[in-house]
Amino acid sequence: MKKNILILCLLLSVVFGAFAQQKPKYVFFMIGDGMGLNQINLTEVFLAAQEDRNTVFPLIFSTFPYATFATSYSLSHGVTDSAAGGTALAVGKKTKNGVIGMDSAATTAYKSIAYAAKEAGLKVGVTTSVSIDHATPASFYANQSNRNRYYEIGQDIIKSKFDFFAGSGFLSPDKDSEKKEAPSLFPQFEKAGYTLAYGLEDYNKVKQVTEKIILMNVKEEDPSALKFAIDQKQDDLNLAQITDAAIESLTKNNNSGFFLMVEGGKIDWSSHANDATTTIREVLDFNEAVKKAYAFYEKYPEETLIIVTADHETGGIAVGNGSSRLNTKLLENQRVSQGTLSQLLSALRTAKKDVSWEEVKGILTENIGLFADVAVSKEEEETLVAIYEKSFVQHEEETAKSLYANDDKLASEAIKILNKKGSVSWASGGHSAAYIPVFAIGAGAERFTHKMENTDIPKKVAEAAGWDL
Amino acid sequence: MKKNILILCLLLSVVFGAFAQQKPKYVFFMIGDGMGLNQINLTEVFLAAQEDRNTVFPLIFSTFPYATFATSYSLSHGVTDSAAGGTALAVGKKTKNGVIGMDSAATTAYKSIAYAAKEAGLKVGVTTSVSIDHATPASFYANQSNRNRYYEIGQDIIKSKFDFFAGSGFLSPDKDSEKKEAPSLFPQFEKAGYTLAYGLEDYNKVKQVTEKIILMNVKEEDPSALKFAIDQKQDDLNLAQITDAAIESLTKNNNSGFFLMVEGGKIDWSSHANDATTTIREVLDFNEAVKKAYAFYEKYPEETLIIVTADHETGGIAVGNGSSRLNTKLLENQRVSQGTLSQLLSALRTAKKDVSWEEVKGILTENIGLFADVAVSKEEEETLVAIYEKSFVQHEEETAKSLYANDDKLASEAIKILNKKGSVSWASGGHSAAYIPVFAIGAGAERFTHKMENTDIPKKVAEAAGWDL
Repeated sequence: MKKNILILCLLLSVVFGAFAQQKPKYVFFMIGDGMGLNQINLTEVFLAAQEDRNTVFPLIFSTFPYATFATSYSLSHGVTDSAAGGTALAVGKKTKNGVIGMDSAATTAYKSIAYAAKEAGLKVGVTTSVSIDHATPASFYANQSNRNRYYEIGQDIIKSKFDFFAGSGFLSPDKDSEKKEAPSLFPQFEKAGYTLAYGLEDYNKVKQVTEKIILMNVKEEDPSALKFAIDQKQDDLNLAQITDAAIESLTKNNNSGFFLMVEGGKIDWSSHANDATTTIREVLDFNEAVKKAYAFYEKYPEETLIIVTADHETGGIAVGNGSSRLNTKLLENQRVSQGTLSQLLSALRTAKKDVSWEEVKGILTENIGLFADVAVSKEEEETLVAIYEKSFVQHEEETAKSLYANDDKLASEAIKILNKKGSVSWASGGHSAAYIPVFAIGAGAERFTHKMENTDIPKKVAEAAGWDL
Repeated sequence: MKKNILILCLLLSVVFGAFAQQKPKYVFFMIGDGMGLNQINLTEVFLAAQEDRNTVFPLIFSTFPYATFATSYSLSHGVTDSAAGGTALAVGKKTKNGVIGMDSAATTAYKSIAYAAKEAGLKVGVTTSVSIDHATPASFYANQSNRNRYYEIGQDIIKSKFDFFAGSGFLSPDKDSEKKEAPSLFPQFEKAGYTLAYGLEDYNKVKQVTEKIILMNVKEEDPSALKFAIDQKQDDLNLAQITDAAIESLTKNNNSGFFLMVEGGKIDWSSHANDATTTIREVLDFNEAVKKAYAFYEKYPEETLIIVTADHETGGIAVGNGSSRLNTKLLENQRVSQGTLSQLLSALRTAKKDVSWEEVKGILTENIGLFADVAVSKEEEETLVAIYEKSFVQHEEETAKSLYANDDKLASEAIKILNKKGSVSWASGGHSAAYIPVFAIGAGAERFTHKMENTDIPKKVAEAAGWDL
C-alpha cells in the first residue's frame, strides 16, 4: 500500500507540475527598440526625481517576477542593427546586420515565432510606433535580404496572412527597392482581405465588421513614425491605443489565443539623437503599452505570457557623469523633442532675415529651460553663441545629422548641454553591444531566469507555448 | 481513504518542497567592486575577440542559472560610493555615502549578514584584493561613521571575532582617524587570537596550527592593494589564492559551514582610471576567484550558495562607440596597467634630462602597442606630442589625477586613445547609477529571479540560510 501511495503521489506531482507550467495562450512579445538597461534605469530615476525622491519608481515591467539579460551581437557584427536584432528575437537565429528573417546569404527564409503561433492556430498581430515595414516589425512577418526593401517587406504582409497590423504607415507603398514605380500595396492588402484603417476613429468604424485589419495613422500624418510621445497632442495616435486595438481585434470571435508583437520603436530614434528627455518619454510611452498587456494578464494570469525585451541598446547611455549627485530632474524642463526644437529654430531662421541671439535664447528657455531653470555656464553660452553666429548669421553648418534626423545644430548642442546638466552621458550616436534586458511574467515566464542569447528568447517562448519554431 | 492519501501527498510535497529548497551551509558572497553589466560584457566580448570570434565567451558566473540586476543608489545619493554600496550588500539597509554599517546619522550600528552567519554558528571569512580595511570588506565587519576611519575599522576586526581575513594589508595600522599615533593594530590582532600571515608561504606555515588567520601580502609589497592582475608576476599574491586559502581555513575542523565574502576590489580602481584592458584583466582575475568557489560548489551542490554581484558600476563604460564593428582585440596590446605605464614614463623623465619623443613613443609601442599594432592618427599623435612637450620638455602638467591614482598625463592620454580604438567609451572617472548585476547558483539561488533593491540581496541570502539578519 505504501508503495502505491508513493506512486500516486508521484503521479499527482507530475499532474500538478504540468498544471503549474500551463502553456501560454496569449503571448505579448514587447520590444523597446534601443532600450538598454540604462534607458530603463534613467526613466525610473527620473520618475522619482520629479517628486524630489532619491530612489527609483519602477516601470510596470521592471516589477515582473523574472528579469534577466541577453546578448545582442549579430552574426556579422559585435554591435547589431535592428534587422539582425529583430530577426534574432523573431526567429531564434542570428544573422547578418541588415537582413530580415533570413540567413546571412539571404538564401534561406527563417520561420518566425509569429508564423509558428499562426501554424498553431492562434491569431497574430504585429504592431509598432514606427512604420509597419521597419526592421523590427518586419522581422516577424517578412523574409528579405535587406531591411531597406520596404516595398517587398510590405508585400510579405500578404504572404503572412496575419490578423492585425498597426503602425504609422508604410515607407514605400508604391516604389520597389530599385526605386521603380510599382502597384500600390494598399489595394493589394485589401484584395488579400485586410481592411485599412487610418487612425482610431476609422478603426472604430470598421472593427466590428471586419476580421483582418491594418491600422495606420491618419493620412495627414507622417507615415514614417508616430510622433515622439513628448510631442504628441491629445488626438494623436499612440502605442497604448494601438495595443488596446490589437487586443480587441485579436480576441474578437477568437478562442484560440493570440501572439502579439508590440514595438516601442522610437526609443531608438531619440537615443540615436542623444536626446535624453525624449528617450525617457518614449520609454514611458512604451510602458503605457505594457500596462495594457498587463491589464490583460490580470484577467487571464494562468494563460498569458508577457515578454518585454529590446533588440539592442542605443547610444551607450550612462546615468551619472562624475558626481554622486544626480540632477535628472532638470530634464523635465525639456518640453519638445530635439526634432521639434530643431524645427522651431529652423523656422525662425527661414522666417526672418536677422534673428538676434536673444530671440534664439528665448526659444531655448521656453522649450528646454536653458538660461532659466537650467543654468548655463559662460563657456556653454559661448559655444551656443558660436553655433548661432555660424548658422543664423553666416548660414553655415546649420544642421547635425543623426541616424533618423538631421537636426538643427543649435538644437543638438542645446540638448547636449541639458543632458550634461541632467547627469546623462552618451558614448555615441550609434548602437552599443550592451546586454539587452529581458522581463517576463505569466505562463512560461519561469524560463527567463538566466543570462541567455537573444536567440533563446523566442525559442523559450515557443517551447513554453508548445509551438514549432 | 482517498482523503487520507491526498493529505499524505500534500505532506510529502511539503517535505519534498523543503528538501528541494535546502538551506545553504556554505555561502560565497562575491563582489566585483565597480563591476557593472558592461564591464562583464566587455570582458566576454574581449575573450572571444582574442580568438577572432564575433561572440561572447561567458565568464563562469554569467553561466549561473540565475542572473538578474538590482538598484545601487544610496540613501543620500543617486550614485552610491563603496561604503553605502557595501553596507547595502552587507546589512540589507541603505545608508549615506561614506558610512560603514551604520545609519546615516551614524548613531545605530547595523548587523551585517556576516555577523548573522556567525551567530548561527558558521565560520566567517572576509577577503579582498585591496586593503582589509577598505569600504567593501569593512561593511561586513565594521560599524563606523566614515570609511576613512581606517584604524578604527581595523579595530572592529577584533570585535567581529570572524575567523579569516585576507587582503593586501592595512592602510593605517598605527595612526587613528585623527592622524594621531596609536598602538599598532597588529599586536592587538594577535592578542585577540589571530595569527598574522604575510604572503602564501607564511600562510602555509601557520595554517595547520592556528584557528584564526589574517592573511596579508608580503611585507615588501604595498599594503594598500594587491597589484593589478595585468601587472602581477608568478609569485605575486592573487585573489584566487586568497579564496583558496579562505576555503581551506574555513573548512578546517568545521562542520558548521561558512560565510565567505570575496571582493575583487580593483575593477573599480582601473575603471576610475578609465583603463579598459586593466579592467578586463581585473574582471578575469575576479572570475578566477569565482572559479574556486564554483569548484567548491561542485563538491557540495546541495549545500552551497554562490552570489556574484557588485556594489555599483564605475566609469559609465560602454562597449561600442559608433561603429557596428568592435575592435576590442586591439586592447590585448596593452601589457601593463596605466599605473605601471605611468611609472615607466615618469621614471624616464626623472632619469634623463632630454628625453626625445621617439623614446617616449618606444615606451608606448612596447607597452600598449601604439604606433605598431594600434594605428595612431595624425591628430592623435599631435595630441600626444603636445602633452609630451608640456610634461617632458617644459615639465608642466605632468600628471592626471583619478580617484586611486595620479597617473602620468601622457599615460592616461595614450590609454584613452587605445580605449577609443578598442571600441570602449567611458562617461566619467566616477561611479554611475547603473543597475548592478546579480548572479546566483546553488541552494537558495532560486530567490534571485527578478530586479531587486541591492538591500534585498543579503536579506534573501539570510532568508535562504535561515539566519537572523
